[in-house]
Amino acid sequence: MSLADVIELRRATDPAWLKLAIERFDEVLIDHAHCEKKAAANALSILQAYPTVPGLPAQMARLAREEAAHLARVLQIMEKRGLVLGVDRGDPYAQGLQKLMRNPNAERQLDRFLVAGIIESRSHERLALLASGLEDPALQKFYDELAKSEDGHQKLFLRLAREIADDAVVEARLGQLLDGEAELIARLPIRAAVH
Amino acid sequence: MSLADVIELRRATDPAWLKLAIERFDEVLIDHAHCEKKAAANALSILQAYPTVPGLPAQMARLAREEAAHLARVLQIMEKRGLVLGVDRGDPYAQGLQKLMRNPNAERQLDRFLVAGIIESRSHERLALLASGLEDPALQKFYDELAKSEDGHQKLFLRLAREIADDAVVEARLGQLLDGEAELIARLPIRAAVH
Repeated sequence: MSLADVIELRRATDPAWLKLAIERFDEVLIDHAHCEKKAAANALSILQAYPTVPGLPAQMARLAREEAAHLARVLQIMEKRGLVLGVDRGDPYAQGLQKLMRNPNAERQLDRFLVAGIIESRSHERLALLASGLEDPALQKFYDELAKSEDGHQKLFLRLAREIADDAVVEARLGQLLDGEAELIARLPIRAAVH
Repeated sequence: MSLADVIELRRATDPAWLKLAIERFDEVLIDHAHCEKKAAANALSILQAYPTVPGLPAQMARLAREEAAHLARVLQIMEKRGLVLGVDRGDPYAQGLQKLMRNPNAERQLDRFLVAGIIESRSHERLALLASGLEDPALQKFYDELAKSEDGHQKLFLRLAREIADDAVVEARLGQLLDGEAELIARLPIRAAVH
């Protein structure tokens, strides 16, 4: 079996999302800050939960540093536009994916890595769409850079998944989760938000 | 009233701590990684809890980035010494300080800022002691740099406390918490750990 090194999403984002995201970009930006915050916190939480997986602590420390750096940059862009962060109202997409995770320890560990990878893969798609749709060249460059970075992160989580489970187990579970994610993307209303 | 811009601890570390910390430095290093992880996670948690305090989100994002960068560097030093992170067994010092925090929202917010500042101040003292006691010049330099950075963080948390409460309230509560911290430091057994 030849194994993919990227997580291929099974449903493309509705073009209506990009139209809304560009029209209400300020709201997307605020949501984006919350996403980066959650990504940094999740990297630290995975480090806390699985410190004995070889290489994982260093990888999650660097990931947390990178996501926190992205967060700082998003907040800087927000400040220039006179936007304030406000309370995180939660993210139905991330919450929907949480519900797909299994609870027993070994299954949960694999699911955490795969779900984190799927979120990075979806973020990669969405941020690349923003880069293509925004007119401001500085913002285009920013989102292009961030999209590439998310692409690296999804590969990282897929590699971690393969380190802790057999290839066939990873492929089967990844397929189930990707189906679940595609169903979720189809079902959730389009929002002026990253997801 | 002239206001201090640093948090002055009320009890110096017992010299026996430095002796033990140098003798069992590998254990201290592992604990130090866990401390940096908790500091980064705490910065994100404070950002999550108080996103409307002016300037706080950007400051906490930069703090999380810096603590995650320190964590990555500590893990790198550990790797060179063949050390693995292992499970976080918890920190009786941080847990003792948690118990001093009040629960109503406004009081809790002030206490979180002040306790975070006190931990940074104690970390500053301890890391400076390590810098003075370690023989390896690279480690000396590393701990000297980190001690300076912790010093900046304690000032940051003190400034945040002054932004959300009257000076007299901050002084009074800081005094109580510093007394509590001094009592805790006197009471806890000396460990091969940062605190």
